[in-house]
Amino acid sequence: MSSAQSPLRITIWNEFVHERSREDVRAIYPDGLHMVIAEGLRQQMGEAVTIQTCTLEQPEHGLSEQVLADTDVLLWWGHAAHDQVADEVVTRVQQRVLDGMGLLVLHSGHGSKIFQRLMGTSCMLRWREAGERELLWIVEPSHPIFDGFEVDHIEVPQAEMYGEFFDIPTPDELLMISSFSGGEVFRSACTFRRGKGKIFYFRPGHETYPIYYQSEIRRILAGGVRWAAPSGSPYTRDARHCPTMTDDQ
Amino acid sequence: MSSAQSPLRITIWNEFVHERSREDVRAIYPDGLHMVIAEGLRQQMGEAVTIQTCTLEQPEHGLSEQVLADTDVLLWWGHAAHDQVADEVVTRVQQRVLDGMGLLVLHSGHGSKIFQRLMGTSCMLRWREAGERELLWIVEPSHPIFDGFEVDHIEVPQAEMYGEFFDIPTPDELLMISSFSGGEVFRSACTFRRGKGKIFYFRPGHETYPIYYQSEIRRILAGGVRWAAPSGSPYTRDARHCPTMTDDQ
Amino acid sequence: MSSAQSPLRITIWNEFVHERSREDVRAIYPDGLHMVIAEGLRQQMGEAVTIQTCTLEQPEHGLSEQVLADTDVLLWWGHAAHDQVADEVVTRVQQRVLDGMGLLVLHSGHGSKIFQRLMGTSCMLRWREAGERELLWIVEPSHPIFDGFEVDHIEVPQAEMYGEFFDIPTPDELLMISSFSGGEVFRSACTFRRGKGKIFYFRPGHETYPIYYQSEIRRILAGGVRWAAPSGSPYTRDARHCPTMTDDQ
Amino acid sequence: MSSAQSPLRITIWNEFVHERSREDVRAIYPDGLHMVIAEGLRQQMGEAVTIQTCTLEQPEHGLSEQVLADTDVLLWWGHAAHDQVADEVVTRVQQRVLDGMGLLVLHSGHGSKIFQRLMGTSCMLRWREAGERELLWIVEPSHPIFDGFEVDHIEVPQAEMYGEFFDIPTPDELLMISSFSGGEVFRSACTFRRGKGKIFYFRPGHETYPIYYQSEIRRILAGGVRWAAPSGSPYTRDARHCPTMTDDQ
Repeated sequence: MSSAQSPLRITIWNEFVHERSREDVRAIYPDGLHMVIAEGLRQQMGEAVTIQTCTLEQPEHGLSEQVLADTDVLLWWGHAAHDQVADEVVTRVQQRVLDGMGLLVLHSGHGSKIFQRLMGTSCMLRWREAGERELLWIVEPSHPIFDGFEVDHIEVPQAEMYGEFFDIPTPDELLMISSFSGGEVFRSACTFRRGKGKIFYFRPGHETYPIYYQSEIRRILAGGVRWAAPSGSPYTRDARHCPTMTDDQ
Repeated sequence: MSSAQSPLRITIWNEFVHERSREDVRAIYPDGLHMVIAEGLRQQMGEAVTIQTCTLEQPEHGLSEQVLADTDVLLWWGHAAHDQVADEVVTRVQQRVLDGMGLLVLHSGHGSKIFQRLMGTSCMLRWREAGERELLWIVEPSHPIFDGFEVDHIEVPQAEMYGEFFDIPTPDELLMISSFSGGEVFRSACTFRRGKGKIFYFRPGHETYPIYYQSEIRRILAGGVRWAAPSGSPYTRDARHCPTMTDDQ
Repeated sequence: MSSAQSPLRITIWNEFVHERSREDVRAIYPDGLHMVIAEGLRQQMGEAVTIQTCTLEQPEHGLSEQVLADTDVLLWWGHAAHDQVADEVVTRVQQRVLDGMGLLVLHSGHGSKIFQRLMGTSCMLRWREAGERELLWIVEPSHPIFDGFEVDHIEVPQAEMYGEFFDIPTPDELLMISSFSGGEVFRSACTFRRGKGKIFYFRPGHETYPIYYQSEIRRILAGGVRWAAPSGSPYTRDARHCPTMTDDQ
Repeated sequence: MSSAQSPLRITIWNEFVHERSREDVRAIYPDGLHMVIAEGLRQQMGEAVTIQTCTLEQPEHGLSEQVLADTDVLLWWGHAAHDQVADEVVTRVQQRVLDGMGLLVLHSGHGSKIFQRLMGTSCMLRWREAGERELLWIVEPSHPIFDGFEVDHIEVPQAEMYGEFFDIPTPDELLMISSFSGGEVFRSACTFRRGKGKIFYFRPGHETYPIYYQSEIRRILAGGVRWAAPSGSPYTRDARHCPTMTDDQ
């Protein structure tokens, strides 16, 4: 558990592909999506956090044992190159989540190996790129992710559509539901506990729109990071043979 | 538990107010909403069910101890006259649900005393009457309520809008989510267990549109009735003092 | 939402009957269970809280509109006199919970009007008074209620037995399960959201044993109070007619 | 979806290792655990089912594409040889579950690759072999798995102990909780939905005790098979690009 005194250690992982291959994406995120996400978290959380970023092309994709050991909450943005993430790194991240690291899976991260691994399902959905208006409605207003939130929905003026059926396990908590101009709906903000780790899936964040500059989106990302921070009993409760109750205690 | 052989005993309760006071409603439901709901269930379920109907103006609102004792699944449609339902009858229905009777709460039944009593919350929501298109999307396709259902969403051409935040406890199962032309979303098909009883809330059914004539709506009502039928252990497990484990068994 | 700076305002309600009518209870809780619960919270939470107590015999049972308006989290201990709590006060407390006040329901508070009102079920269970050993096992270790907790179970040397079936709605979160020497089990630590309020039911606390002096029990009560404190969006989202999306926003 | 007329097609998979390597196990299950499980299901379900069995040593462990395509519900018993199950077969079984096949995971199947794959967690627990008495208590009596069940708990006279923390995602439904003589508790009967498939984990079944001969255990296995049978919408809802709402329908 991280104490209130020491800053929360955040790592933002971005595959960083679109920003280098597509002019329209670079125009919005010239230094990469991760840099704008980082800027948003700094703006919202100030000195309560330290932030590092890493990308696909780095050795071990930047996610060495040491980096993960020093991470309280990991954010994951991927889309075009899910297959290029090494299984060994996926296993390492999964293990850290089960041990208590928080994980925010963003937008098309629904298709990432790490999310599928933790969910056990295909995590597939329907989609359409038509620059539609998305409205995200809060369905669990007392959740701490919404601390201080003064509205009951968020409007994203232009978004890629994601529609149900979204093939995930029933979320532990369903926090927001989106509608799109085309009429589809989507479970856009969901939480899951796996092992000692907490996972927050948050849908908005398509690379061709300036969504991570939007203040409400930044507030929810910050709320999600706070919520996903390690908490609870630090007691290590490994599977083990318990000869008797006495030995066991 | 009802055996497969004997027909399921259904009671449809309707306050039966709008149909007598408003010409536009009478035009659609001349004999009352309950008669059209009954027709739909007969069409879908045939000899697997016996159906009786009752209304607010009857003695005890038609819900005597005997009627409830002879009911496997109760459907509830109310809107304009929630306050006129006697608390004593509400308590009686609640007790039967806790004892195992199924309950389908339809449309504006969200504001009924019996639903509020079983939920413990206000059950309030936002609404608008503008004849909007509603799309209901399935988010739990393997649920038996959808047995044989060949589509992944239903379109209701004209509907009253209900929007979140819908002040209910987190449903045990969230089955469908609606979007409306205006952009709102709603948890439109939800299940809850209370005591030994199963409750299905299903949103569509505004009195000024011919929604209960629509075949997909009828299929879901039939699926809901089948699902809510008494099931599980008939063992009566009253609260009681258990002097010792031996006495207890 | 209570800010980190201002202390959390706690009210402890105790029916305060056993302590005055029974010598054996008075021997353990001479000034009332509420005073020992208060002492425990002060010990655990220090200046992070202000605490007031109230009892059944006070006017309005000590739970006036003003007292409730000034309460962030209410703790409820009752057993022998559930029926003497005025319905009007129960309705007032329920409304405050739906508006965001936290509620801890302790031990035999399972049978209180306020708990039954918020659950919608009988909340009944089986029980036995035989001074049995109770073991409470953590089944959701990452929950913030267990922050800093260094064990995976608690032993209460002597307890009244509560056994399943416990007639409650499925909890939003099941945190601890008890076993008793006689072999029964019980869902002993459960959370529920109702409206904007958070509810924590915590089983231990029989009046004839010094359970509220036990440090692990005190830690969990403190964790429960922290968790149940008002959080989330302060936006008032009343049910209302929304003529158009524009008006609505 | 299987119609009521055609029998449910069950496949029982057993690693079949202990029965051949250990005299004490062979004494109880001379032809293998799978044969006794099959006998129990036939006894309970009669002509409503057809049953085939297969084991680890067969080509593809007996789980070819064809066998799985012809299976409505698969039962899985494994313990000593989880690692010998080919990843390719695990992937195939997972895919069939996501497509709608039911899966019963029995006893030490908690550690199987297929269960871990579908859960995303370690699925670990604590354990002890001491021939303890296990009591399994029903905590959701209205679940159809308990149809016709006339008791509120089951006693297994001698069992291996499994204790919490059981590292699984929060079950969609928690049906039974065990206590053991040593004082531990365990979530012994749990359901999970993954994709269109339903999964039932049921704890009892240690190879050194005659547990699969016990009539209550057989009833619950039969109830689990019925519940896990494919249900819901047969509509194939693949992830796909939806250029417009019109194209999409």
